[in-house]
Amino acid sequence: MATVTPDAAPGEFIPPGSRFHFLPSPFPMKRGGQLLGARVTYETWGRLNDARDNAVLIVTGLSPDAHAASHADDPTPGWWEAMLGPGKPIDTGRWFVVCVNSLGSCKGSTGPASIDPATGQPYRLSFPALSIEDIADAAAAVVRGLGIERLACVIGNSMGGMTALALLLRHPGIARAHINISGSARALPFSIAVRSLQREAIRLDPNWNEGHYDAGRYPESGMRIARKLGVITYRSALEWDGRFGRVRLDSDRADNEPFGLEFEVESYLEGHARRFVRRFDPNCYLYLSRSMDWFDLAEYADGDVLAGLAKIRVERALAIGANTDILFPVQQQEEIAEGLARGGAQARFLGLDSPQGHDAFLVDFGRFGPAVRGFLDELAG
Amino acid sequence: MATVTPDAAPGEFIPPGSRFHFLPSPFPMKRGGQLLGARVTYETWGRLNDARDNAVLIVTGLSPDAHAASHADDPTPGWWEAMLGPGKPIDTGRWFVVCVNSLGSCKGSTGPASIDPATGQPYRLSFPALSIEDIADAAAAVVRGLGIERLACVIGNSMGGMTALALLLRHPGIARAHINISGSARALPFSIAVRSLQREAIRLDPNWNEGHYDAGRYPESGMRIARKLGVITYRSALEWDGRFGRVRLDSDRADNEPFGLEFEVESYLEGHARRFVRRFDPNCYLYLSRSMDWFDLAEYADGDVLAGLAKIRVERALAIGANTDILFPVQQQEEIAEGLARGGAQARFLGLDSPQGHDAFLVDFGRFGPAVRGFLDELAG
Repeated sequence: MATVTPDAAPGEFIPPGSRFHFLPSPFPMKRGGQLLGARVTYETWGRLNDARDNAVLIVTGLSPDAHAASHADDPTPGWWEAMLGPGKPIDTGRWFVVCVNSLGSCKGSTGPASIDPATGQPYRLSFPALSIEDIADAAAAVVRGLGIERLACVIGNSMGGMTALALLLRHPGIARAHINISGSARALPFSIAVRSLQREAIRLDPNWNEGHYDAGRYPESGMRIARKLGVITYRSALEWDGRFGRVRLDSDRADNEPFGLEFEVESYLEGHARRFVRRFDPNCYLYLSRSMDWFDLAEYADGDVLAGLAKIRVERALAIGANTDILFPVQQQEEIAEGLARGGAQARFLGLDSPQGHDAFLVDFGRFGPAVRGFLDELAG
Repeated sequence: MATVTPDAAPGEFIPPGSRFHFLPSPFPMKRGGQLLGARVTYETWGRLNDARDNAVLIVTGLSPDAHAASHADDPTPGWWEAMLGPGKPIDTGRWFVVCVNSLGSCKGSTGPASIDPATGQPYRLSFPALSIEDIADAAAAVVRGLGIERLACVIGNSMGGMTALALLLRHPGIARAHINISGSARALPFSIAVRSLQREAIRLDPNWNEGHYDAGRYPESGMRIARKLGVITYRSALEWDGRFGRVRLDSDRADNEPFGLEFEVESYLEGHARRFVRRFDPNCYLYLSRSMDWFDLAEYADGDVLAGLAKIRVERALAIGANTDILFPVQQQEEIAEGLARGGAQARFLGLDSPQGHDAFLVDFGRFGPAVRGFLDELAG
C-alpha cells in the first residue's frame, strides 16, 4: 500500500509511519455539518490473512496518535509498546492490528487544526461539532477501506471505549468481539465537571482568543492547567502516596518564585504539562473533550443505557477497568458487560486492583496484559 | 466585652458580629518573620461558666469565617448553623463556644489582604510565610485572652483538623478532648497536587500580577478555576451521579458561547465560583492553601506521623470522616485516632457513609450531628 503523506498544518503532529485514509467527501457529521476531503491516519502491524478475519482495530483515548507500537516504518516505541507486537498480549504474529487516530485529533486525522479546503485556513472553531459517533464512523471507513468485512475484535481504551461502543452500535456486524478498557457507555457528572473545567481553563486563557492563537500567542497557561488536572484525575491518591509521599525537590530543582514548585508531586505534574502543552492543539483538545461529555448510549434507547448497550450485537466481550479509576469508575465497565450480555454477548467484567487509576492500562501491563491476551487467545480458539 | 471594630481593608470581609483579639506584638511566625499589631476575629455562643471549664473551640476550614451560627449580634445563619445552637449537637445551652477565623484569612483576622502597619499598604506577598502552626498559635492566644485555662474540647474541620492537632501539640493541656472532622495529620501528594494546581491557576492569571491586583484588575479567571477545582474535589462522583446525572440546562439557561455551559453540573460549579471569586482574597487563598501542604505532624517525631500524634496529650478524642472523601481520605482520620490512642487518649475513629465527600460535614447533619452530639454528651458526663 502506498503511503500518502499530506503536509501537516502548523498545529498537526503526524507520526512518520502514518498511513492516510480519505473519507467519503462530503463526510456527514452527526450533529450537523460535513467535512470535505477529510482523512483519518492509521498504522498497522502484522498481516491480514487471506480469509480477512484476523483484524483487530484499536481506537484510542483523547490524546494518543495512531503509533501504538514500533514497526518497520517507525521504529520509535509507541504509546502501547508493551501490549502490541510479536508474542505480546495483542500478538501481531497472529493478528493484523490497525490503530486509528481519532477524527478531530491533531495527529494526522482531520480536525480543528487542519486546513479547511474551502478557505485554505485552519478550521479552528469553524470545524463542525464533533461527536464520538463521528469518530466511530471515520474509524469504520478505515476498516472498510482496508477491505475488512468483519473485525475479529475492536479494542477501545478510555475515550476509545466510547468510540468502540458507538462503532458497534452504528455498524452492526463490524466486529465479532470487543474489549472495552476503562471506557464507559455515557459520561457522568464528575467526569463532565472535570472536562468542563479543563476546557474552561483553555477558554479563559486570553491567548486562546476564541480559537485564533498561533505559536507566538499560544494558550500555554490554559493548556498547562488542563493537562495537570487531567494527570491528577488519571491517577489515584493511593499510587501517589506510595510514589511521592511528601518528598521535596532538591534545592537546585525547587522554584525560587513565591508559591513555586516544592514537592516531587508538583514537579511530576510540571513535567507532564511541559511535554503536552505544545504537542496537542488546544482547539482539537476542546472538540475531543466535549465529544466525551455528549456521549450517551442511552440516547439510542429512550434514556436507558443498558437497553442502548443491549442493542449491540457482538459474540464475545470483555470490559476491564481499574478499581482506583475515578474518571471512568469500574461501575461503568461493569455496566458495559451487563448491557452487552443482555444483547446476547458472552460478556465478562474484570475490575483489576491496579493502583494507577484511569491510566492503569498504559502502565500496569502485569494486570492488563494477561487479561487482554487471555481474551484474544480464546477468540482465536 | 467591648466589641472593637477596626476598619476593613478592601480585600477583607468581616462579619458584623465579629470580636477582635489583638495578638502579642510582635507575634513570631514559625517559618520566620513576625507580625505587628495583628488580630484574630472570633465569635462566641453560650456562656462561660464560673469554673471556666465548659469552653469549646472551633477552628475552621480554609474559607469559612468565624460566623459559624447566628447569634444576637448577627442573626444571619452561619456556615454550621445546623450544628451549633441551643439543643443542637454542639449545644450552646451547655457549652461556651468560640469560633475563630484563621490567621492569614481575609474575614477579619490579619492576613495578606490586611494593612501592614509598617507601610500603611496591604501586605500582599510581603506577609510572612504562613503555617498551620501560626494559625494554631493565634487561636491559642484567643483562648488565653478569654481567660480559659483549659478547653473542654477543640473541634477542627478540614484544615481546622490540622490546626487543632497543631494547637494540641504546641500548647499541652489546652484541651481535655478533641473532635477531628475530615482532617489530617499531614498533607498527602494527591491533595498537594490539587492545591498546587489551584494556586497555579491563580498565579497564571495575568491579573494576579504577583499579588498586586485590585478590584478593577482582579484575577477572576484564576479564582474561578481554583474554586471549581475545589468544589469538584470537595464532593464525590457518587453524589453527583444521583444529583445531576446527565440533566441538561433549559435552553434559556444554557450558554450560547462555543463550549459554554450545557449540563446542570456545570451550572452548579458556575454558581459556586460566582459566589466565591470576589468574596475571598486571592493572596489569602494562596497563603492558606500552601500552609496545608506544608503541614506534617511527623516533623515533630523524626518523620513518624503516628509518633507525632502520640506526643499529643488529650483525654478523649473522636476522628470522623466521610468514606467518600478524596481530599482528606478517611484513612487519615483513622490514623489520627490511632496516633492519639498511642498517646494515651481514649480515641475512636468513625468513617461515615455520607455520599457528599469532603464537604459532608457541612451538609450531612443526619450523620455528623449525632456523632458530635454523642461525644460531647459523654464528655459532659
